[in-house]
Amino acid sequence: MNNQDLLKQYEYYKSLNLNINMARGKPSPEQLDLSLPMLDIVNSKTTCIDEDIDCRNYSALEGIPEAKKLFAEIMEIPVENTVVCGASSLNIMHNLLVKSMLVGLEGGVPFSKQEKLKWLCPVPGYDRHFAMTEYFGFEMINIPMDDNGPDMDMIEEYIKDPTVKGIWCVPKYSNPTGIIFSDEVIRRFAKLKPASKDFRIYWDNTYTSQLSFNGEEEPVLNIYDECLKNGTEDLVYIFASTSKMTFPGSGVSAVGFSLNNKKDYLDYLQYQTICFDKLNQLRHAEFLKDKPTIIKHMKKHAAILKPKFETVLNLFEEELKGIATFTKPTGGYFISLYVPGIAKEVVAKCKELGVTLTSAGSAYPYGKDPDNSHIRIAPTFVSLKELETATRVLCLVIKMLASK
Amino acid sequence: MNNQDLLKQYEYYKSLNLNINMARGKPSPEQLDLSLPMLDIVNSKTTCIDEDIDCRNYSALEGIPEAKKLFAEIMEIPVENTVVCGASSLNIMHNLLVKSMLVGLEGGVPFSKQEKLKWLCPVPGYDRHFAMTEYFGFEMINIPMDDNGPDMDMIEEYIKDPTVKGIWCVPKYSNPTGIIFSDEVIRRFAKLKPASKDFRIYWDNTYTSQLSFNGEEEPVLNIYDECLKNGTEDLVYIFASTSKMTFPGSGVSAVGFSLNNKKDYLDYLQYQTICFDKLNQLRHAEFLKDKPTIIKHMKKHAAILKPKFETVLNLFEEELKGIATFTKPTGGYFISLYVPGIAKEVVAKCKELGVTLTSAGSAYPYGKDPDNSHIRIAPTFVSLKELETATRVLCLVIKMLASK
Repeated sequence: MNNQDLLKQYEYYKSLNLNINMARGKPSPEQLDLSLPMLDIVNSKTTCIDEDIDCRNYSALEGIPEAKKLFAEIMEIPVENTVVCGASSLNIMHNLLVKSMLVGLEGGVPFSKQEKLKWLCPVPGYDRHFAMTEYFGFEMINIPMDDNGPDMDMIEEYIKDPTVKGIWCVPKYSNPTGIIFSDEVIRRFAKLKPASKDFRIYWDNTYTSQLSFNGEEEPVLNIYDECLKNGTEDLVYIFASTSKMTFPGSGVSAVGFSLNNKKDYLDYLQYQTICFDKLNQLRHAEFLKDKPTIIKHMKKHAAILKPKFETVLNLFEEELKGIATFTKPTGGYFISLYVPGIAKEVVAKCKELGVTLTSAGSAYPYGKDPDNSHIRIAPTFVSLKELETATRVLCLVIKMLASK
Repeated sequence: MNNQDLLKQYEYYKSLNLNINMARGKPSPEQLDLSLPMLDIVNSKTTCIDEDIDCRNYSALEGIPEAKKLFAEIMEIPVENTVVCGASSLNIMHNLLVKSMLVGLEGGVPFSKQEKLKWLCPVPGYDRHFAMTEYFGFEMINIPMDDNGPDMDMIEEYIKDPTVKGIWCVPKYSNPTGIIFSDEVIRRFAKLKPASKDFRIYWDNTYTSQLSFNGEEEPVLNIYDECLKNGTEDLVYIFASTSKMTFPGSGVSAVGFSLNNKKDYLDYLQYQTICFDKLNQLRHAEFLKDKPTIIKHMKKHAAILKPKFETVLNLFEEELKGIATFTKPTGGYFISLYVPGIAKEVVAKCKELGVTLTSAGSAYPYGKDPDNSHIRIAPTFVSLKELETATRVLCLVIKMLASK
């Protein structure tokens, strides 16, 4: 296709006055509909008692037994190692980071009173993770990722530095590449011996219950078990939530950790709230119930997600061969698209045509993609029709800019 | 009654093997039942859209419009000055305090980097407030209270000290005395000119929607309006929640403040969560609706609370004349009982008889009641029958210990 044709197409899309927002990894309304029956579970006739706990009243800071059991199953750790919280796992991460900053971990020196603070950031990664460590003044260090996960050689080297305090990880369907950490990578994580005692792996396993787009389980090695084998179980905080299972923002989240870490966290948590929303915990525990029930439910999500990812990936294959590269995730919420040197320009030009993408650079610490290459594609929220249009716009824009 | 008779009664109650817990200010199951219809409001048939917001998905960090409108009405401040959050107002207080500690207020020096920190604590007060400022290392200063509120002369003097950073207040049905701050006290609060720019009044107006036990409104002067008159609107954070209206721990909370304070808080909040539980906000906004609906609902609570407070106060009148003094609250969740010199012993002996009261001293910073006098009575949770028994036990124990 020559420049003339591209320009013609550009004018055509411009005339459509599009307004398509693909910036965030939100489930579509169709996906949300899947969980509507959950809203009938706790009603005025429900006995809201779990064991001896009246879920309607104050109590049970750690969560109700039924919800703890559910999340222990989801996170594959013992029930006594879980704390079930409110709607946001991001909030638990923030809370743990704040605790580290302000009062320290297990009696150690608070981060805010230590000279220098560094944090390891596998890239590309989740912008909200990076925003948090940036806000608290950590020097963030880029760790390249490949199809197996982050570069473990680099990590093993960096953790010899006692000012390195932690690492962000999304081990399954990693945001935004969609890759799954290999067993080997996870085994090496569990063997880390950081110089700093208060180094923690923030294991954001938010997609742990997601199935592949074909509706199949893609198990990820259990990091907690691996840590136990190595006596490193204090090294990791495991996070999960129902955000991508039921209603994002109105779900339930949980953290799984060693009993040391749990005690340390509860000692802090007890001052900030009496308990979390136990009625919502009950609602979720009754709806998601157990692993077979979750799988049945997640298959429905997968069926909705599959054609969306296929649409984008097929168009990329057809249109961008030789011009761009991209990941081909088997599950999750994102695709990573690489257009070296022109990512910012692509996102800006798409915006001109009414297609909003995640800001270029946002998958990197400080918003700085060293190669100005990466664009996070979030195909989930928009309708299939809009998605196709938006992807065509994106491909067109890339072809226009690449040909310059 | 002579000692022999008292001892006989003691043995009688001992033989009953009582197990009555009056330690916390929890609503009774009967009160919780009042809000059961709310659980039917958001169901699988509900259109969960508020204006352009799908309450089932991510978005709206400040809360949904309907909930903001409700809390603006509850807190008597403009809608744009409210942020509606999750289930716990205590959690908002903690979050604001953490922000002050870690990053400072409006660009000021973080508290954790300032030399000395002091906090004003009207006594007796709420143990969870004091626990929080104790945990963060504030030197807490007791401010005596009378029927009009805290001693404003002392407060006006203390705030000349720039290391004094804030004050806890429960202006309506104060925990645990049950008093209501007078107009004069509130006017003086609004006129405070603290030496420290980052001094804040934590105005915990958690009982703002409570009616008197007779089901009547007892209005409290609007501190925000008074602050506006004095140009001191950055001085106060106003907190409210539905904890004593619907289900404690599974409700909705909110903070009301100046637009300066709001901007400062949202700048911090955006890093820790994407949004709060909007379905629960919707549920509450639809159920509590507006002031007339709230009053109708709160009258039902008052009707359940009234005989409980009457039972305790009548027994105190009959049994403790000349031995103890006590407050006679017109609403709220607590009574303050004063038994100078023997509070700890009374609580311990009640425990022997199977009646658990709030720990003596807990209504004072560091758990230290200088007069070993105050006992917080929480009559709300137990049944009327248990309450009468427990109160009789309490009176007996006081008479035994006072006669020594």
